[in-house]
Amino acid sequence: MTDVPPVEAPQTGSVRARSVVLVNTGYGKGKSTAAFGLVMRAAARGWNIAVVQFLKSGKWHVGEEDTGRRLGVDWWTIGEGFTWDSKDLSEDEAVAQQAWAHARAVIAAGDHRLVVLDEITYPMNWGWIDPTEVVDAISSRPEHVNVVATGRDAPAVLVGVADTVTEMVKVKHVFDTGVKALRGIDY
Amino acid sequence: MTDVPPVEAPQTGSVRARSVVLVNTGYGKGKSTAAFGLVMRAAARGWNIAVVQFLKSGKWHVGEEDTGRRLGVDWWTIGEGFTWDSKDLSEDEAVAQQAWAHARAVIAAGDHRLVVLDEITYPMNWGWIDPTEVVDAISSRPEHVNVVATGRDAPAVLVGVADTVTEMVKVKHVFDTGVKALRGIDY
Repeated sequence: MTDVPPVEAPQTGSVRARSVVLVNTGYGKGKSTAAFGLVMRAAARGWNIAVVQFLKSGKWHVGEEDTGRRLGVDWWTIGEGFTWDSKDLSEDEAVAQQAWAHARAVIAAGDHRLVVLDEITYPMNWGWIDPTEVVDAISSRPEHVNVVATGRDAPAVLVGVADTVTEMVKVKHVFDTGVKALRGIDY
Repeated sequence: MTDVPPVEAPQTGSVRARSVVLVNTGYGKGKSTAAFGLVMRAAARGWNIAVVQFLKSGKWHVGEEDTGRRLGVDWWTIGEGFTWDSKDLSEDEAVAQQAWAHARAVIAAGDHRLVVLDEITYPMNWGWIDPTEVVDAISSRPEHVNVVATGRDAPAVLVGVADTVTEMVKVKHVFDTGVKALRGIDY
């Protein structure tokens, strides 16, 4: 394969987008990590940034959350302020829907130029969040709001509304050899 | 495809690695961005972090560099302090070799628990840096030093020495539609 320079932006682009929708999917490492890298980049530009986590991550992402808060990111951990009074939904579903209600409001408000929907594909695929609602919220967002969504098995409708979709493919992974997760690297 | 939770660390791991070597390669977006996400995570743990850039990136990565410096990262931009007095090498080669000499010294010194070799695959593939030297430096590193290398077409010897290799595959990319790079997202 020919080596080519890594400049991933064309010098020839002629259309100026006001914002983009990125999806990081696939079974490899780096989906959320790349989203947090974008947070670093956007923070350098002084943007208002919101992160909404759609899964309880336990110790996972605690590091990003700490650093994100240091950078002024509005970080919304799933289950935050959660009160569960429904008998019609499982607690997991209710929590996911609450996270989505929060995310939808954040996107629509337009106070943040970058909104990260971390691991949103899982509740979408599990039927806890209506994919059509997600796509509608993204499509009708204020034009300066960039959205990044992460998670395995991105639903086709999400891929459809995205400008850029990257699949992270595992070539090899240290965990497969029985090595434990490493603090500072994996969480 | 079955949806599975995104916990990418096994509960079953039995081996405790002192450090790991990660490679982000492929033609998709997110290779460097995921590396910078790792910088965010490691910064949250209070680690000393070094980033060495192997390509002149122009405006690219300026955002990460700013935020990285805010987080206390030792950031080495290629060409930094460069003096070129060789008649045997092209300037590009000389600059790449200087970057490598710096990176090798940083890895060996062990003062940083995370060393990012950003876009090192290009000078390796272009014959400007000897891949064997890179592999030797990584293999003989102090055991607490984690190394992340990024770039397209990771050489086989680099993949061989890595614990975890992820290929970022482009599913679709907004640049293909003629859209210009967006400040805060792409750089």
